[in-house]
Amino acid sequence: MTALGSSGTALIDALKARLGESYVLTAAGDIEGHITEARGLYRGEALAVVRPKNRDEVAFVLQECAKAGVPVVPQGGNTGLVGGGVPYGGVVVSLTRLDGIREIDPVNATITVEAGCILKTVQDAASDAGYLFPLSLASEGSCRIGGNLATNAGGTAVLRYGNMRELTLGLEVVLADGRIWDGLKGLRKDNTGYDLKDLFIGSEGTLGIITAAVLRLFPKPHARVTAFIGCESPYDALKVFQRLREAAGDQLTAFEYIPEFGIEIVLKHMPGSVRPLAERHNSYALIELSSPQKDADLQSQLEAVLGEAFEEGLVQDAVFGSSETQSQALWGLREHLSEVQRMEGGSIKHDVSVPVSRVAEFIDVATKACEAEMPGVRVCAFGHFGDGNIHFNLTQPVGMDKAEYLGQWERFNRIVHDIVHGMNGSISAEHGVGLIKRDELMLYKDAVALDLMRSLKRALDPQNILNPGKVVSIGDNAPAALPK
Amino acid sequence: MTALGSSGTALIDALKARLGESYVLTAAGDIEGHITEARGLYRGEALAVVRPKNRDEVAFVLQECAKAGVPVVPQGGNTGLVGGGVPYGGVVVSLTRLDGIREIDPVNATITVEAGCILKTVQDAASDAGYLFPLSLASEGSCRIGGNLATNAGGTAVLRYGNMRELTLGLEVVLADGRIWDGLKGLRKDNTGYDLKDLFIGSEGTLGIITAAVLRLFPKPHARVTAFIGCESPYDALKVFQRLREAAGDQLTAFEYIPEFGIEIVLKHMPGSVRPLAERHNSYALIELSSPQKDADLQSQLEAVLGEAFEEGLVQDAVFGSSETQSQALWGLREHLSEVQRMEGGSIKHDVSVPVSRVAEFIDVATKACEAEMPGVRVCAFGHFGDGNIHFNLTQPVGMDKAEYLGQWERFNRIVHDIVHGMNGSISAEHGVGLIKRDELMLYKDAVALDLMRSLKRALDPQNILNPGKVVSIGDNAPAALPK
Repeated sequence: MTALGSSGTALIDALKARLGESYVLTAAGDIEGHITEARGLYRGEALAVVRPKNRDEVAFVLQECAKAGVPVVPQGGNTGLVGGGVPYGGVVVSLTRLDGIREIDPVNATITVEAGCILKTVQDAASDAGYLFPLSLASEGSCRIGGNLATNAGGTAVLRYGNMRELTLGLEVVLADGRIWDGLKGLRKDNTGYDLKDLFIGSEGTLGIITAAVLRLFPKPHARVTAFIGCESPYDALKVFQRLREAAGDQLTAFEYIPEFGIEIVLKHMPGSVRPLAERHNSYALIELSSPQKDADLQSQLEAVLGEAFEEGLVQDAVFGSSETQSQALWGLREHLSEVQRMEGGSIKHDVSVPVSRVAEFIDVATKACEAEMPGVRVCAFGHFGDGNIHFNLTQPVGMDKAEYLGQWERFNRIVHDIVHGMNGSISAEHGVGLIKRDELMLYKDAVALDLMRSLKRALDPQNILNPGKVVSIGDNAPAALPK
Repeated sequence: MTALGSSGTALIDALKARLGESYVLTAAGDIEGHITEARGLYRGEALAVVRPKNRDEVAFVLQECAKAGVPVVPQGGNTGLVGGGVPYGGVVVSLTRLDGIREIDPVNATITVEAGCILKTVQDAASDAGYLFPLSLASEGSCRIGGNLATNAGGTAVLRYGNMRELTLGLEVVLADGRIWDGLKGLRKDNTGYDLKDLFIGSEGTLGIITAAVLRLFPKPHARVTAFIGCESPYDALKVFQRLREAAGDQLTAFEYIPEFGIEIVLKHMPGSVRPLAERHNSYALIELSSPQKDADLQSQLEAVLGEAFEEGLVQDAVFGSSETQSQALWGLREHLSEVQRMEGGSIKHDVSVPVSRVAEFIDVATKACEAEMPGVRVCAFGHFGDGNIHFNLTQPVGMDKAEYLGQWERFNRIVHDIVHGMNGSISAEHGVGLIKRDELMLYKDAVALDLMRSLKRALDPQNILNPGKVVSIGDNAPAALPK
């Protein structure tokens, strides 16, 4: 823990007086889980971790911290992958006690939730009311809505339903000086001035602390079909994707790409998993069509498109998950991918996107470039193909020292991000910037855009106390990007 | 024309030297169409109207105006309904010469267009490439994409495809000081920092001048069915809407509300139009289902839902537009509504939205309140029911003096906007703020939101030269909101 000066002590006392002793944590053991993060890449420090129970208490914390000039780092489930929630001094504001579902309005198809709600809880509440809340990601059982909003979370349902941004109609936000913006409207159309909501979404806690949101709900899908196809190349997979989009429109709810290497390591490390097709193929795609119509004949539609693609050699083999169990088995292959990479040793990761028209070319070109750079490196390029979003991960060569391999992180960043940049893509598609990509962003982001970001940060947080040093740095209190 | 000081003369000379004499208009006759607006509510003034041919010339104009401290008002088709494009001194930047379609990427399903493209031209280009660009509004033959972006345009396709904001992936913007932000990316996922794009969209030219955009395209609908239903009340119409949304999901592409008074005046003023149902009903809805699947059996789906609603008395009568001609006739009733109101005398207009769950109640309550306020006033509440967006227009009592009636504009504003505000709605759903609602906004918008808007305006336009006095006022050079 950082040593407390007298002003720090006064701040902690003020926070304890308002929130209660038990909600202002300062003991090393109590704050440990809040100063580290999921991948073990960063270890920060904090004066205290506070656990306010409502927006007024959050506002109080920010007022006091602003007066004292002490930084504030908001945290939800602390499941982020870019170090955005790691504090470097100051106070961590944990939103976990703001976990109420304030309202479900079935006719408006909206749900109003507090920032500390676990994503799974929101999905379940929507489902109980007969609706779908579509955001779906690996950490849904522990990540929280505030974090999903702060990072504009993506996941497997973006193709059909959009990112967290598109799923959000209104916000309640506590500003740097403790004022509260009540923008909790559930409107489809509202052109009364600047789009404040979208400025806070994806700003990773650097412009304000989101305390609640109005989210969109959708009719539940009542028909669903899954297929798993094998292709000669990502180029062929892309042609299949295009045909499906044209034929099925928004009934196409997933098109996830998996390479042969991905299947191999899932089969190796996941007991009970079964190779889905008889032969090996270079490229696979997990396809899902769904519809709110109970009697929608999705399988015939999918068979028609895939049948034609098979005749032309674009699809080499396919299997349908006609029952819920079969579907789940196919989805399991995709969902285990993150986990099994860890079991194969060090993994250097890139969360990138390109225009969908270039996604096959990107996989091809970047794979060859990385294999040429380090013979034996094993490319695991998978993910949200239909969004142009690939998790371009590089598993270490067999037998290489893990630490030595991970030391090459920046060398591979340069290769992969240069290719992405050359294709007018993004070096952070869905995970955000945080600390891990803050300095990398300086290399690739338009200089005027970076200037605009700094102007906005200065306008909304002139003291630079909101999660300072993350996303874009405007002060000298920024931590180094990669502390060991 | 405003009298030119010597610095004004120097500015005009500099603009002529770069753009060419013929693209810097100063003669009264040449600029007349740019200092007035569609409804004849405002008449402004301008030093000059300039017609740059590309973004670099736009940047030059802004650099020079910034140096001279002269305001700049961007204009597209000048079809806006809130006075947002009316200049009060300074230079009008007309974007009409930036009318190129830079690229269509069919696999990425995007089109890159310049700000001066007419909306209809973009729709046609998309269609020629086999895609749909869904934005659709009454002025589509003359409004331009830059204006659609600046006002976050809505229209009849929002229910399925979203506002202009949701249709936009990337922007190119010239800033107040003439710098260019190149954000022309066509990515579905990009979490590299603050959402600059959405800050400029809907800012009505007060934060920057949009010069180009990457827009989303969609699969063309190949099946379509239209129906026109008569209901006892908006409450019944809302129940039908909810059932259709649940059953048809995104195949429900329009649900437009029309009152009996609307049908009456269309029939009265539009030769050849025919009452769609045998009897009169209080409330009507124009419903459209569409699908990219050629063989989608939309009519059966629609019949099933409407049949059940008929049995329960929610629908009193219905007719299907099974052919393209029948469909067009039904749509015609809706599309002529704006026009025929003018023929019935003075009309006091409100473009408002409420949560969809309260749209029927809003129509009911606001209608009664206005009828009680002025017996004989004829309520024409119509529009995008499925978005909660009603054009709540009030046609003058028969025989009343038009000018005397229009003098009651603010009195009715107060009644209608108070009801909207009480339902957590918006006093400008799709038309924007401009001049006409700037001062009204001060009454209804959250004070913290207004403060945030002013902070953003100061951060991005510290000299207050971009369309000053529109949307939110930060200087004393703001024109009065309702000049006569």
